[in-house]
Amino acid sequence: RHNSFSKTDTTIQVKNPYLDTMEEDILYHFSLGTKTHNLPEMFGDIKFVCVGGSSNRMKAFAQFIHQELEMPGNPEEVSDICEATDRYCMYKVGPVLSMSHGMGVPSISIMLHELIKLLHHAQCRDVVLFRLGTSGGVGLAPGTVVVTDKAVDYSFLAQFEQVVLGKVVTRSTELDEEVANELLQCSSELQNFPTVIGNTLCTHDFYEGQGRLDGALCSFSHEDKLEYLRKAYEAGVRNIEMESSVFAAMCRICAAVVCVALLDRFEGDQITSSHDVLVEYQQRPQVLVSHFIKKLYKTFNKSPH
Amino acid sequence: RHNSFSKTDTTIQVKNPYLDTMEEDILYHFSLGTKTHNLPEMFGDIKFVCVGGSSNRMKAFAQFIHQELEMPGNPEEVSDICEATDRYCMYKVGPVLSMSHGMGVPSISIMLHELIKLLHHAQCRDVVLFRLGTSGGVGLAPGTVVVTDKAVDYSFLAQFEQVVLGKVVTRSTELDEEVANELLQCSSELQNFPTVIGNTLCTHDFYEGQGRLDGALCSFSHEDKLEYLRKAYEAGVRNIEMESSVFAAMCRICAAVVCVALLDRFEGDQITSSHDVLVEYQQRPQVLVSHFIKKLYKTFNKSPH
Repeated sequence: RHNSFSKTDTTIQVKNPYLDTMEEDILYHFSLGTKTHNLPEMFGDIKFVCVGGSSNRMKAFAQFIHQELEMPGNPEEVSDICEATDRYCMYKVGPVLSMSHGMGVPSISIMLHELIKLLHHAQCRDVVLFRLGTSGGVGLAPGTVVVTDKAVDYSFLAQFEQVVLGKVVTRSTELDEEVANELLQCSSELQNFPTVIGNTLCTHDFYEGQGRLDGALCSFSHEDKLEYLRKAYEAGVRNIEMESSVFAAMCRICAAVVCVALLDRFEGDQITSSHDVLVEYQQRPQVLVSHFIKKLYKTFNKSPH
Repeated sequence: RHNSFSKTDTTIQVKNPYLDTMEEDILYHFSLGTKTHNLPEMFGDIKFVCVGGSSNRMKAFAQFIHQELEMPGNPEEVSDICEATDRYCMYKVGPVLSMSHGMGVPSISIMLHELIKLLHHAQCRDVVLFRLGTSGGVGLAPGTVVVTDKAVDYSFLAQFEQVVLGKVVTRSTELDEEVANELLQCSSELQNFPTVIGNTLCTHDFYEGQGRLDGALCSFSHEDKLEYLRKAYEAGVRNIEMESSVFAAMCRICAAVVCVALLDRFEGDQITSSHDVLVEYQQRPQVLVSHFIKKLYKTFNKSPH
């Protein structure tokens, strides 16, 4: 295979025999539906979906990609397609959808179910998905970008446990290796862009699960914390965040996770960098993914339809 | 004990020996800190904390309680104390704090860690906490309000599993019985206010974990779904939502969960009621908790300081 972008028929598919028998599908948390909206017309041309936790950040990304792709119109005027709800925000810029997903696996899980149904109803094909996030680094300088190899759980296993009707089902969380390698290649084409491929530890909270000493509850010592982080490092973990596992489990065939490390957890727990420094760090995943999209977008536009 | 509101020294406490040794505590997801803000002055008089998933709804609650407590000033002008971040919103109206927590256990967990630290730093005492939410009903007419007895997991056990440095720790999720009973009493003082006390099933997703047939993934039959809901009903479950377990585990001594059922899950999965009907349903937990607060606020204001 010469590259990952010639992939065909790798579109994420709904795996639900009931879906096509429904007269109407209300995407409740998006305030969209198959009867109230013409989803193929609104979304049929999407090729890239970029998701991230913060609504402000995903609006900023929509404006940024608008400029980078030299789309017609004023980037300041992107409008929130989900403005009827405050659960998520959603912006569409040409072939790019930019959406927020809130914090944690359950929040992004609701969004992914409805997003995958949206792409299905809109008959989108060959879509690549990216999560653009922030994270705690493990043995990395703040500002380093981590492209996820495998999303691992608290035991450093590449699996996601999903409860289905009271039973625990285990799903794989390996991501697309070709997309990850292409992102690493993109980073080398940018100036001063420290980027690594590594495993990402996905936790279900920010304090105890990540070994922070500064939560409302803390029952372990500083040495216990360092020992856990060392074990994580030995298992190939380079950053810690809270959404990658279910993102990988649900989107794996054509998806990547790109997070910047805001701090090195070996050095501390609190995020103490200045506002301006943090804003610059948070732009890095956007710059990298935008570079990737621009390369592909040119390819698309050159190819006959 | 004559009622729950004469309780003293029941304030939620931080259980972290490191916290008071820190020179500064940055509440990162609130954009507040002990060095940058005078937390006792800003928050020291708080007696009631009300939290809910949606930022719009918690702003509406702040405006509503402003009117109900006949506070001076314009209710429309309540301002978001956390406006420097889009993670959560926070409004203070006299003794009441109204905050959003997003969707799912991880999202509310981050908020609770920082909220409990905030109440600690602000030296608040005798605070009662409420979660005001929406939920799926189990054998209840839509619009029924459920006050949670116990928050239960997918096996219908009153426990919450927290991962601490790679090990699973189990915590109890029983809530304050007296507060729940007083809320039921409040409901009987309101007109046409269907309210029950029951167990609340807390899941980590909205689709597969709750037995919905309309997600992007569905591997079970309609009959499997009904069987799981019947088992839940037999275990005393009357509604299903996504935050109660960690809320109960972290706040239990002086906390209640009050959620309205938007639909009866025995009847379907999609939320098909009209916008206006859903808006009215979502006001019910607000009306009930506001009634409770008004009763206590009068008691406070009559008592000598």
